Amino acid sequence: MSDDPSRLTHLAASGEANMVDVSEKAETVRTAIAGATVTMQPQTLQTILTGDAKKGDVIGTARIAGIMAAKRTHELIPLCHPLLLTKVAIEIEADELLPGLRIRATARLTGKTGVEMEALTAASVAALTIYDMAKAVDKGMRIGDVALIEKTGGKSGTWRKGAE
Amino acid sequence: MSDDPSRLTHLAASGEANMVDVSEKAETVRTAIAGATVTMQPQTLQTILTGDAKKGDVIGTARIAGIMAAKRTHELIPLCHPLLLTKVAIEIEADELLPGLRIRATARLTGKTGVEMEALTAASVAALTIYDMAKAVDKGMRIGDVALIEKTGGKSGTWRKGAE
Amino acid sequence: MSDDPSRLTHLAASGEANMVDVSEKAETVRTAIAGATVTMQPQTLQTILTGDAKKGDVIGTARIAGIMAAKRTHELIPLCHPLLLTKVAIEIEADELLPGLRIRATARLTGKTGVEMEALTAASVAALTIYDMAKAVDKGMRIGDVALIEKTGGKSGTWRKGAE
Amino acid sequence: MSDDPSRLTHLAASGEANMVDVSEKAETVRTAIAGATVTMQPQTLQTILTGDAKKGDVIGTARIAGIMAAKRTHELIPLCHPLLLTKVAIEIEADELLPGLRIRATARLTGKTGVEMEALTAASVAALTIYDMAKAVDKGMRIGDVALIEKTGGKSGTWRKGAE
Amino acid sequence: MSDDPSRLTHLAASGEANMVDVSEKAETVRTAIAGATVTMQPQTLQTILTGDAKKGDVIGTARIAGIMAAKRTHELIPLCHPLLLTKVAIEIEADELLPGLRIRATARLTGKTGVEMEALTAASVAALTIYDMAKAVDKGMRIGDVALIEKTGGKSGTWRKGAE
Amino acid sequence: MSDDPSRLTHLAASGEANMVDVSEKAETVRTAIAGATVTMQPQTLQTILTGDAKKGDVIGTARIAGIMAAKRTHELIPLCHPLLLTKVAIEIEADELLPGLRIRATARLTGKTGVEMEALTAASVAALTIYDMAKAVDKGMRIGDVALIEKTGGKSGTWRKGAE
Repeated sequence: MSDDPSRLTHLAASGEANMVDVSEKAETVRTAIAGATVTMQPQTLQTILTGDAKKGDVIGTARIAGIMAAKRTHELIPLCHPLLLTKVAIEIEADELLPGLRIRATARLTGKTGVEMEALTAASVAALTIYDMAKAVDKGMRIGDVALIEKTGGKSGTWRKGAE
Repeated sequence: MSDDPSRLTHLAASGEANMVDVSEKAETVRTAIAGATVTMQPQTLQTILTGDAKKGDVIGTARIAGIMAAKRTHELIPLCHPLLLTKVAIEIEADELLPGLRIRATARLTGKTGVEMEALTAASVAALTIYDMAKAVDKGMRIGDVALIEKTGGKSGTWRKGAE
Repeated sequence: MSDDPSRLTHLAASGEANMVDVSEKAETVRTAIAGATVTMQPQTLQTILTGDAKKGDVIGTARIAGIMAAKRTHELIPLCHPLLLTKVAIEIEADELLPGLRIRATARLTGKTGVEMEALTAASVAALTIYDMAKAVDKGMRIGDVALIEKTGGKSGTWRKGAE
Repeated sequence: MSDDPSRLTHLAASGEANMVDVSEKAETVRTAIAGATVTMQPQTLQTILTGDAKKGDVIGTARIAGIMAAKRTHELIPLCHPLLLTKVAIEIEADELLPGLRIRATARLTGKTGVEMEALTAASVAALTIYDMAKAVDKGMRIGDVALIEKTGGKSGTWRKGAE
Repeated sequence: MSDDPSRLTHLAASGEANMVDVSEKAETVRTAIAGATVTMQPQTLQTILTGDAKKGDVIGTARIAGIMAAKRTHELIPLCHPLLLTKVAIEIEADELLPGLRIRATARLTGKTGVEMEALTAASVAALTIYDMAKAVDKGMRIGDVALIEKTGGKSGTWRKGAE
Repeated sequence: MSDDPSRLTHLAASGEANMVDVSEKAETVRTAIAGATVTMQPQTLQTILTGDAKKGDVIGTARIAGIMAAKRTHELIPLCHPLLLTKVAIEIEADELLPGLRIRATARLTGKTGVEMEALTAASVAALTIYDMAKAVDKGMRIGDVALIEKTGGKSGTWRKGAE
């Protein structure tokens, strides 16, 4: 997106923040995958996973919240362009070693800008929703590793975490 | 908020997610402070901090985004109550050891429910905004340590991270 | 709310629509319960109820959508006041005789205005979400009986459907 | 949209709700028409229709509310895609036999997904707005027959109510 | 609100923008009235006023838009507090001398902060809506005199335009 | 957009307001530039411009608010189409002769409808944000000259203020 790695594209010549002009960019299929974790007490994880019929609701609610948040990314992040997401999917899995839950959010569209922020926002809001639903039993939960895992499409092509 | 630590208050007897009834809770002054970090390449931090007039914009934009997001927490987190925030403040500081930026968000209100989610949402969206504004030079940035630092007010009183 | 049954309170003397002034109304606990039905093919109901693990998601997603919509009622209905809901709950049950699903939405707050519109909006959006999730197999579904079942609190006191 | 009538397209293999991937669908002109009714006391209908200059406002306000709601469908219905509506129109007519008002909402776009939910949401919110503006004189009003009347465009082609 | 006229209350000591803490402010009835004008070609005004049945719609639509915008002021203006408006009213009158339309918006609540921004936002959005609906015939219209006319309530008491 | 200058395109034959059908319009690059002024006391302008580190925040916050508002124009203006802005930029300059600040907002997209309302909404909300941030020291500020400066693209081609 920039040949000069020290140039932040959201900043105009004078240093003022403005929405980057993407009018001339090509419409291509673009995908982004982002991850996040919610680390918690082992008992909190068990309550979420084995509680009577509760599992479905905590994880299911977080998934819905993440999907809905992806659609509102441009309202939350000041310089993001509005765009027409064609897919959002959220996977949430237990990880006994954290211990806690691992979130993976995928966003896709055919358009002029990438969807990294949509995937990251989906993962973040899914994580915040898990915190909200379990905070009555564990206020010390911690959200971490909110990061881009992979992006494809667009002029800059494919990018993978750890393969820089 | 619950004597039985295995009870998730957002779940009805039958395990269905519903908004907790807070009609009978007292109106008290409630404050919550949440933190988050954005870890990045040293050069990215320098670009943000020393670029020509750019610092103010990246950090200033993130602060505004976090404040605005706090006000919309109940739209994003399915079971959060709408509430009347009386204060939101965001502090963002450089930390050369991360290296990266540390975010601290404070939310306050006089009301029937706590503002933990508002502080956490503010910190998360401020962090996502920093990611957005610097991602052209560093896609490998990582948001972490999104956690409650302190809460005061309400029936459950004061809680501090690490003092459980 | 009006002694003259022909007076629509949202209309000023000149017939112009404006938001009613509730500044002088007392803050009381107010509750409203609204209902709605979604009538569908028997096979559609069975697909929702008995499909492999699908039940939880259709009904669970509709419940979350209804709760979130209740919080945004004042954004959708032009002359509704913003208010601080203290509870929203959605129940959804199968009714083989419709055949279809019955929705019951409860809204509550301590405030100056009633929450009838919040309960009705929650029931409507839960019903629309069921339609959305099952429309691939049954476009002929019909939403009906969207009506107030009961309201309590406020100057006009208790009202029950059928007991007028 | 599906050859297997028992398959709900919003549900992934594992039964988890996710937004359907429409990246590969063709952009075509798609139209949907939905209807709704608001049944009320004869006197309520007369108040709306013959009140001094009031008619325009109740019906006009409901029409505006329905149009604005259509644009926010993807914010309300969790798994709806954001899309670029090119037309929304709402017609509202009195029906002395109900007695009450009949609403007809039309939505159109050139895009990858149908606009059934946009038309249904527009009709529902127009009906809710009528309820809101007349509830001071008639809390027993009932919204019904919220249903798709016709859709055209897209892979599944034309569908008409009653012609299945 | 400040004894030192050079102190902008939204700015913290370090010059960073943050939402002012109003936790300690008293809840009082607060009212604000704001005005705006839309200046246009005489023929445009006549088209709005005398067109067949058109008057109600342009002016009526602008009034609804202004009321709805008042409720979303805190989403638009970064440092505004969310609040519970108890009244919003918009009056729009023709002024042949402008020539054009004069808008007057009134907002009221019982709360901890003033409603100047809500009245100003309502007037602005009503004016923008008039522009939108008539721009096909007159792109040269001009919105002006967007200003506070009067405010009452709160610690600083009554303020009237021109009486400073 | 209309050969008959007395025809307001938002009004159907019967005078009812509806969203214009743009399904058949061509996708072209369209740009609009709008302006606005905020007139204030000379001392208020000095406070904004020379206060310790304050300048960046008032003007920077207003710029962010304007950009974010542009993206929400279709939520605020009832008959505006949702669209995919590809660029929004806000410039704010001091004008000692007003005295006050001059705002210039540019909006661009490739699409079926013009972006005049997006530019005008951006300029208006930037102006309202300046008012909000300085109102503690100067309630008599006045927003004026909110007008279209230039538009290009679309069937009606280029239009410039004063060149009609």
